[in-house]
Amino acid sequence: MRLYRFSTALALVGALAAGAATAQSVEDTVAARQGQFKLFALHIGPLVGMAQGNMPYDADLAQAAADNLVKLTTLDQSLLWPEGSDNFSMDGTRALPAIWENPEDFVAKLAALQEGTQAMQAVAGDGLDAVRGALGGIAGACSACHQAYRAPQ
Amino acid sequence: MRLYRFSTALALVGALAAGAATAQSVEDTVAARQGQFKLFALHIGPLVGMAQGNMPYDADLAQAAADNLVKLTTLDQSLLWPEGSDNFSMDGTRALPAIWENPEDFVAKLAALQEGTQAMQAVAGDGLDAVRGALGGIAGACSACHQAYRAPQ
Repeated sequence: MRLYRFSTALALVGALAAGAATAQSVEDTVAARQGQFKLFALHIGPLVGMAQGNMPYDADLAQAAADNLVKLTTLDQSLLWPEGSDNFSMDGTRALPAIWENPEDFVAKLAALQEGTQAMQAVAGDGLDAVRGALGGIAGACSACHQAYRAPQ
Repeated sequence: MRLYRFSTALALVGALAAGAATAQSVEDTVAARQGQFKLFALHIGPLVGMAQGNMPYDADLAQAAADNLVKLTTLDQSLLWPEGSDNFSMDGTRALPAIWENPEDFVAKLAALQEGTQAMQAVAGDGLDAVRGALGGIAGACSACHQAYRAPQ
């Protein structure tokens, strides 16, 4: 897993620096990129809902949601951040140009999110306290990246 | 992997039958659901492009794309197909009600897609002929599901 993530990170740094070629338009690419965040939001939802007491703890659902979050955050990102897909270059995205100016830091912040979701995956079936404890790492990783690299709405 | 897929399939059959509860609106859920197909399209793109000779074969890119396709097609689907998210119940989706009338067949068609992407993952780095050979299984699985369960555009 470490090796995989490292090679993924290297590929992303290269892609951010060079602009990865895809067969699709930049608009289609951004729509796909945003799709992964929509999928993330949908699956963090029940974990937050359980943690806040808005829905009963369900070990199977918590585990399935956490498993999905790991898959989503470990998707290879090489094709998803082509140059010219920032919010200065096009409409419909809040991705700041700073992403492409600081690829190593961007990748490090993604790695923190991967670690957060993997920590959740390891304990999601262990009860509500475990879920509550693991949510902080995910929320912190989300927030750190959004503050640095996402424009306000 | 077999066990995982089986339990995922059972969960999806249950969710399709009962309507899964999510913290998000049905519109947000459908947008997330469509996000996974957009991500799928983006990552099948280079494999098709290489197979058709529109871009040079790149073993690393082919493998990364195939790895992503496996992650995407093995996402747990329990939260993504709530009742009322078909194209008779709402705008903005081409998902036919037949999905919810034939959950076992829908899950079987998803399993065929998973098998297709896993077969691609196993050979994506082995050269252009291997990629060409594995594309047929994916294309067949896409087509079978779209013909049965997706409205024409």
